[in-house]
Amino acid sequence: MRTGGPGRPQADARELAAYDELIRRSREQALLASCSSLLGWDEQTYMPPGGSENRGEQTALLAGLQHERATDPRVGELLGTVEGSAVVSDPESPAAVNVRELRRTFDRLTRLPRSLVEELARATSKAHLEWVAARQAHDFELLRPSLETIFRLKRDEAACLDNGEGEPYDALLDEYEPGAKSSELAGVFASLREELVPLVSAIAGASRRPDPEILRRDYPVDRQKVFAETAAAAVGFDFHAGRLDTTEHPFCTGIGPGDTRITTRYDPRNFSDAFFGVLHEVGHGLYDQGLDPEHHGTPMGEAVSLGVHESQSRMWENIVGRSRSFWNYWFPLARQVFRDALRDVSLEAFHFAINEVKPSLIRVQADEVTYNLHVLVRFELERALLSGDLAVNDLPSAWNEKYLRYLGVSPGHDGEGCLQDVHWSAGLVGYFPTYTLGNLYAAQLFDRAWDDLGDLPAAFSTGQYGGLLGWLREHVHRQGQRHHSAALVERVTGNPPSQEPLVLTLRSKYSELYGF
Amino acid sequence: MRTGGPGRPQADARELAAYDELIRRSREQALLASCSSLLGWDEQTYMPPGGSENRGEQTALLAGLQHERATDPRVGELLGTVEGSAVVSDPESPAAVNVRELRRTFDRLTRLPRSLVEELARATSKAHLEWVAARQAHDFELLRPSLETIFRLKRDEAACLDNGEGEPYDALLDEYEPGAKSSELAGVFASLREELVPLVSAIAGASRRPDPEILRRDYPVDRQKVFAETAAAAVGFDFHAGRLDTTEHPFCTGIGPGDTRITTRYDPRNFSDAFFGVLHEVGHGLYDQGLDPEHHGTPMGEAVSLGVHESQSRMWENIVGRSRSFWNYWFPLARQVFRDALRDVSLEAFHFAINEVKPSLIRVQADEVTYNLHVLVRFELERALLSGDLAVNDLPSAWNEKYLRYLGVSPGHDGEGCLQDVHWSAGLVGYFPTYTLGNLYAAQLFDRAWDDLGDLPAAFSTGQYGGLLGWLREHVHRQGQRHHSAALVERVTGNPPSQEPLVLTLRSKYSELYGF
Repeated sequence: MRTGGPGRPQADARELAAYDELIRRSREQALLASCSSLLGWDEQTYMPPGGSENRGEQTALLAGLQHERATDPRVGELLGTVEGSAVVSDPESPAAVNVRELRRTFDRLTRLPRSLVEELARATSKAHLEWVAARQAHDFELLRPSLETIFRLKRDEAACLDNGEGEPYDALLDEYEPGAKSSELAGVFASLREELVPLVSAIAGASRRPDPEILRRDYPVDRQKVFAETAAAAVGFDFHAGRLDTTEHPFCTGIGPGDTRITTRYDPRNFSDAFFGVLHEVGHGLYDQGLDPEHHGTPMGEAVSLGVHESQSRMWENIVGRSRSFWNYWFPLARQVFRDALRDVSLEAFHFAINEVKPSLIRVQADEVTYNLHVLVRFELERALLSGDLAVNDLPSAWNEKYLRYLGVSPGHDGEGCLQDVHWSAGLVGYFPTYTLGNLYAAQLFDRAWDDLGDLPAAFSTGQYGGLLGWLREHVHRQGQRHHSAALVERVTGNPPSQEPLVLTLRSKYSELYGF
Repeated sequence: MRTGGPGRPQADARELAAYDELIRRSREQALLASCSSLLGWDEQTYMPPGGSENRGEQTALLAGLQHERATDPRVGELLGTVEGSAVVSDPESPAAVNVRELRRTFDRLTRLPRSLVEELARATSKAHLEWVAARQAHDFELLRPSLETIFRLKRDEAACLDNGEGEPYDALLDEYEPGAKSSELAGVFASLREELVPLVSAIAGASRRPDPEILRRDYPVDRQKVFAETAAAAVGFDFHAGRLDTTEHPFCTGIGPGDTRITTRYDPRNFSDAFFGVLHEVGHGLYDQGLDPEHHGTPMGEAVSLGVHESQSRMWENIVGRSRSFWNYWFPLARQVFRDALRDVSLEAFHFAINEVKPSLIRVQADEVTYNLHVLVRFELERALLSGDLAVNDLPSAWNEKYLRYLGVSPGHDGEGCLQDVHWSAGLVGYFPTYTLGNLYAAQLFDRAWDDLGDLPAAFSTGQYGGLLGWLREHVHRQGQRHHSAALVERVTGNPPSQEPLVLTLRSKYSELYGF
């Protein structure tokens, strides 16, 4: 009997050799990228200040090498040989997925003219310094001209990348969330907004209030470290294949199989920042540690999208980490470790405090309910900026108007308004929505896991996370890029991505906490 | 008036362009090498154990890229264009030095057949595991066959590299100590041995003895760290452009301009290991930090040789760091920091203890007098092994015989005899002599610095090291590879390298300490 089943055509030697060469090149690219990742990690953790100029040159050299290899016409030839051949006849096979995604990347990179890439690099490099100055001086005018240039260039970029389907914004979104369509997102996000705005109002009007001051007592840094590392290891982060370090800005970076590094920062007068920051990065890290090592360096061994990545971090940070059942187990330990701070605090008070909801101006400090409204503001604005429906000049007033409408707060100045994020000045347009997609996917996936696994809160109450982690490994991590995010969610949960699971989760949790 | 002076020919545009391309390529090679350095540093310091397989692949990829670029025939063409042109007409100009050294490296790399390089890589990789097993089992036979293969391959390597001058050993030595001739070394080393053997006997027969136990009291690790870092910074190591970390095996690695990293290990019951280890690595680090940043990535901005590198580490560790004047300043501070350990210890007793001389079996634990005898044994043996005058099979007995003759000690087994070092099983032949060259150069350079600068001990007694460091910067560090090591030493000191300064230094110091 022939392998491949009756009737299925056989790939010839040339096609198989082309596929093998593609994979070898993909793995080399991944190795080079992993060297860049280490340079980046070191820059944030241990590099002495004097090393930054040399680090810039190292990083640029490796980036240049990677770009040169990624856009090598030979890759196009190899893809041409393999596409349509029997190598990729089963569209869900690893080979077909790899070829599909290698083509996507090759086209993205080769469609952008070198002049545009360089112009964008210059514009964003200039804009970064202006953004720092503008935010500090609360003066949008310092950034405005560069921001106009950047949005003009991003329109050019979208035009180069555009495949004729959907609006130009989709071409940018595709870099972070492959296959996502902004028209679909806009529908889901609008429905989400319509549910969240009244939920935030209901919380604001509730008579029960948490006491967040109990989280701002003395939490000695050395004890925070031990406590956070213990929790990270307990939920499944493998310290044999990873590290936790201290940096100014927390992040997670995968150096390669067996080497996933997360970071956090500690404030001796704030329990939540480091602890939930660690759980967040652990969520990213678990995804990274759960990727299939057999497929490392190829799309089948890589994360699907920023949105799915964020779903993992948000699930561990919020759905697991801020749940009552999680603290049934950990609060008695926390009281031992932080004896002075928590002596007079009950589990109920603690759990309420870590779930305080309060509309605010700054996205990165927002709670899990209002956070999405910050993101929706940015999604709506950047989409309008890109299409030209909104002029850059009108951004501050449009920003302030939306904050007032969705969150009921008004920035005192643009520094705490439209200048707070680095993204746009860095040329990142289409990135923001992935934060909220992460929250949506997290809620939807978690509901399904709960259905499949039975009583998850009971497991968390006894410090058991293996069931959930195993489920995520199987249904998400090991899938690599087999499906794009929306298809992945639909396959796993039976429904396309929707705002409903998140809305139901939040409404149920917060009506109980705040009593309305 | 024409630049370059009357009568000097002008380089044409083609020659200048070829030189520029050579330099650009050299700098890119240095950048790639600096990425490898960071991978190596991270592997020793912070990499989680699970990352080692991926690290091996990253390292191999970068090494392959570097080798591919270093042996690109284009480099040979460029060298051919520039050599003999007006670009290099002044042999001491940076351009001439760079071209001379780039040619040396290119020839070394291109003369070795790929098959030989791969055979050596396989043989040493196999031998490494066997060496670990042989050393542990005290069984030379486990390593013997591989060692025979390695010396056979090294003979082949020497034959490929041989330029017809000197003996085959010189071709290997040239990798670590460019331009050195083993016949000259052998003369100097023999004279050194004839002086050291009786000096060691005189010390052994002296009636005054130090009390080394005072260095093996409780020296808390956190205090050792602070004390060592303080001393490192005081002698001139720039922590803005460097770091000190903890590793199992201490080392110094230059990641690039502004980024020099040293490491050490701490034993809570041993003062000397970490402290003098740090001063040793600081010496290497000061050389690295003193290289000319303008010439970074080219031979004019790189260290001359392992011998000269070692001269810097030995000078700071031994000549400065174990001097009485150094401790005039630091001992009162040490007594504050290590109150319990040093409460009843006088400066004299402390200084005597850190300078204990005692023949022993293990090179890496040897004092500054007997250390050179360990090296001379290895130099004589590896030269005979390479020439074939000594069979690998006879190595253990030849080793033991020399140890008895030079040091008066006999290994109980080969694990503390000829199996103690990793070098030969790693294919490093011609490396050992650079350790003693370092000691010779250090003494000779230091004498000259003292002549030039006046009373150095007075400076050390008040914690001043800027004079010596500035002198080294000017006469050694900033010279890059302008001259090979022997020529450098002769230019700076007025005499060719000799055993005399070291012998005089040691005799004077130890006759005073031990009273003979």
